[in-house]
Amino acid sequence: MMQTALTLTQMINRAEKYFPKKQVVSRTASGIKRFTYKEIAERTRRLADGLETLGVERGDKVGTLAWNHHRHLEAYFAIPCSGAVLHTINIRLSPQHIAYIVNHAEDKVLLIDSDILPLIEKIHSEFTTVQAYIIMTDEEELPETTLEPVYHYEKLLASADDSYEYPDDLDENAPAGMCYTSATTGNPKGVVYSHRGIVLHSMALGLVDGAGVSEKDIALPVVPMFHVNAWGLPFAAVWFGTTLVMPGPYFTPKLIAELIEQEKVTITAGVPTIWLGLLKELDEKTYDMSSLRAVLCGGAAAPRGIIHAFEKKHNIPFMHAYGLTETSPLVVISNLKSYQEQLSDDEKINIKAMQGILVPGLEMKVIGKDGEIKWDGAEMGELALRGPWIASEYYKDERTAEAFKDGWFYTGDVVTVDEEGFMKIVDRTKDLIKSGGEWISSVDLENALMTHEAVFEAAVVAVPHEQWQERPVACVVLKDDYTGKTSAEELLQFLEPQFAKWWLPDEIIFMKEIPKTSVGKFLKRTLRDHVQKDILQRN
Amino acid sequence: MMQTALTLTQMINRAEKYFPKKQVVSRTASGIKRFTYKEIAERTRRLADGLETLGVERGDKVGTLAWNHHRHLEAYFAIPCSGAVLHTINIRLSPQHIAYIVNHAEDKVLLIDSDILPLIEKIHSEFTTVQAYIIMTDEEELPETTLEPVYHYEKLLASADDSYEYPDDLDENAPAGMCYTSATTGNPKGVVYSHRGIVLHSMALGLVDGAGVSEKDIALPVVPMFHVNAWGLPFAAVWFGTTLVMPGPYFTPKLIAELIEQEKVTITAGVPTIWLGLLKELDEKTYDMSSLRAVLCGGAAAPRGIIHAFEKKHNIPFMHAYGLTETSPLVVISNLKSYQEQLSDDEKINIKAMQGILVPGLEMKVIGKDGEIKWDGAEMGELALRGPWIASEYYKDERTAEAFKDGWFYTGDVVTVDEEGFMKIVDRTKDLIKSGGEWISSVDLENALMTHEAVFEAAVVAVPHEQWQERPVACVVLKDDYTGKTSAEELLQFLEPQFAKWWLPDEIIFMKEIPKTSVGKFLKRTLRDHVQKDILQRN
Repeated sequence: MMQTALTLTQMINRAEKYFPKKQVVSRTASGIKRFTYKEIAERTRRLADGLETLGVERGDKVGTLAWNHHRHLEAYFAIPCSGAVLHTINIRLSPQHIAYIVNHAEDKVLLIDSDILPLIEKIHSEFTTVQAYIIMTDEEELPETTLEPVYHYEKLLASADDSYEYPDDLDENAPAGMCYTSATTGNPKGVVYSHRGIVLHSMALGLVDGAGVSEKDIALPVVPMFHVNAWGLPFAAVWFGTTLVMPGPYFTPKLIAELIEQEKVTITAGVPTIWLGLLKELDEKTYDMSSLRAVLCGGAAAPRGIIHAFEKKHNIPFMHAYGLTETSPLVVISNLKSYQEQLSDDEKINIKAMQGILVPGLEMKVIGKDGEIKWDGAEMGELALRGPWIASEYYKDERTAEAFKDGWFYTGDVVTVDEEGFMKIVDRTKDLIKSGGEWISSVDLENALMTHEAVFEAAVVAVPHEQWQERPVACVVLKDDYTGKTSAEELLQFLEPQFAKWWLPDEIIFMKEIPKTSVGKFLKRTLRDHVQKDILQRN
Repeated sequence: MMQTALTLTQMINRAEKYFPKKQVVSRTASGIKRFTYKEIAERTRRLADGLETLGVERGDKVGTLAWNHHRHLEAYFAIPCSGAVLHTINIRLSPQHIAYIVNHAEDKVLLIDSDILPLIEKIHSEFTTVQAYIIMTDEEELPETTLEPVYHYEKLLASADDSYEYPDDLDENAPAGMCYTSATTGNPKGVVYSHRGIVLHSMALGLVDGAGVSEKDIALPVVPMFHVNAWGLPFAAVWFGTTLVMPGPYFTPKLIAELIEQEKVTITAGVPTIWLGLLKELDEKTYDMSSLRAVLCGGAAAPRGIIHAFEKKHNIPFMHAYGLTETSPLVVISNLKSYQEQLSDDEKINIKAMQGILVPGLEMKVIGKDGEIKWDGAEMGELALRGPWIASEYYKDERTAEAFKDGWFYTGDVVTVDEEGFMKIVDRTKDLIKSGGEWISSVDLENALMTHEAVFEAAVVAVPHEQWQERPVACVVLKDDYTGKTSAEELLQFLEPQFAKWWLPDEIIFMKEIPKTSVGKFLKRTLRDHVQKDILQRN
């Protein structure tokens, strides 16, 4: 067989050659714009030429700080197809972390949305490698800025050559992109994506047994393009000639609902918070959502209630999935098996509430306390992954050794797998409570507590125990109306019929607030230290 | 990203692990048998162990002479996953050609269906490398045979070890399979398939924009497993956990119709002749064909009439495709674009009568007399292909140089491409008539002639011409009732309104029969020599 390389160049070329009339619908600061793939492909070549003019060479990192829009899409191809590396930067990270990763990645050029400019102006003096800034704006002139040297994206394209040709000798294992993921402690960790990895991941997205992305789709990636390549959707969509709808900056649930209705979106993707917002919007106003064939949900486990509301109340197919920055991200997806389609609606929603089944192309193993777990939906273990779109290291980072062992990536996620091979996230390894040689899921206890009418939120952490090594303690925030009226005993009685006796928390501590990260996740480490100190002082 | 290899081992492992209950329905000489993927996977490991016991080592070729059934499927995985090379042998080739390719490939072991045994007994004395024969039979004892040493497939499996483990260090570029394709002159030419090529080709089959093969399908490969890996369907089906229905030996259109109805087949694949037979059966008897989502048709262009009958008369979706032994085979497939779905039924059938659009992952160019052709549906050129599942050579064969140039495979097929990128086969390069610097398609003239009520069959060939280099001459066989009653003038008048004047044949020669190959194709080379000599003698 021919040794042709799996590179991104074939994707943009295919869109231009076979789907020149198909569209990218892009919402920017000044409204909705429409581009054909013919136009996008020409602009992409111009951007590649413009970057070359600015001195970007093969292997150079080019950072983007931008929302989901057509210019960001052009960068998605112009940078890797010219041999450079697309470094998407999470604009929601702290300014210190942004400065760290720009320097750590050694970004040579930054592409910045004009509304993100103020953030970068505050920290650009710390940048050690950046040689040029390109501002992405609809305005004719550049905004006032202290950045230097600075270029206007559209003017750069206008003065560039659209006869630019992508190099045809790219190595499929060459880096195409990179993304940093925030760590529990310390600086973010970088993951480098190869051309080969992205091509194979895009194929997985296009499989019927993957996400089934195709030319017939109209795809709305709500998940940001600075977050694991918007789950790879822009790459797959361009390759297959899928119509893309880009929601742009500062969107609301209302805007998402309107875009779905107006553009007849067939597939959209985002985190549970987004879908909770959309559900609320759909409850308040009637929209035509009948074009949707899949609401792809990842980033965190969606509560069963959300899935039920989408599927039964609004008749919108919901599709759970799981992945991480280190996994490109698609790992499992909740495609029901043919014979599961005959189950009752309730049973089907139970299956959909799990994260799903491994997509073709990857391998997984789940390591419990006694080796590989039994697939019984109960035994817990840490998920480890192997495959051509799984990272093999953190970029120039000593923390590689913690997660990458014996050719496997250890996710740090504790999961169960049922008889049919469906995986369910149970906890993070570091949050799991190891009691008397058995494992207790903090997440299961939290979810149960949060179904109690008095509970606003609950976090369960481990405290050291002489006899049992660790025991669970629950931290509970009551709803305003219930404060002082609901007792720990009442909550424990509520839990009792749902769990084995030894799972029940030794103590329930009421709090006013549970400490959280910038993205709203419980800061369990802080909480654990706090609770342990508290208990120690009391004893 | 991890450097995990793309090998077939992951496919059979995935079927066993995730789809142990799914089935392979296998029709053999003694009736229909059902196996779960759990059983198939165990038997496959046993076969791999058995072959190892017989001395098969990495890189060794193991030939199969067999129909489509579960044992052949087991060989499809046991051989390549153990590191050997699956050499499927076309049992319809002449005995001399079969002996040639067994020796040329250097097959070490042959797996043979018991009904094919007599054919092999006639030629086995010519084999220079074969060290063992394994007979695939439902009978408890081996048939009488002169082959030596000879093994009983089921007994080999029974005495083998199912704890056998496939090697985990296979190179993705290592050979996994091979298949010989008959040449116009001389011996068949061998094509070697790599693990990587087959994995990527299987992904293309699973794409919505490919053939959309998935776990939800029930696939019936009518195309023989000795013919380009049954178009790759067994590999894709096992990987995705698709139910497989294997039609076994000597099937009839009636049997195919019954299997589709009884097993609720969703996708089936074969050549136009098969579908012509099925149509006739459907006209004679009523079957429930409502489970079918695609009748995949390749190997030769299907006449528009067949497509119309499937789609309009029987409401069965028809899916044209194109490929060759050298291309794994899937190259183009007639998936309509989203905006083409709005066209009239007639226009849609016109599109489906073309071979289709390039699947993601490959590149094509079409070289006409003045370089790359215009995509206007009219200009003709030779199709050249590039990509990871396109062969790079003929196995140990000097004819490689004729077809593989500058990193491209030149198919020898003359095609047009329309504005939307849909490709249509027009002719073979060697059959094209080059007249006055322009190209005339022999196939177009033949198809037009064959729509005349008096014509049974027609072949058009080039004869040398002083002024125009070449001119077309038509050879026509009239139907019995019309012999002697239909004139050349009448046929020329019939053609006149359909073609440019310079396309019309200079002469129409009536014949009793047109010489054909063993698979029923016109022997144009013989015909051309014959006609040229005939005309020369007359002048």
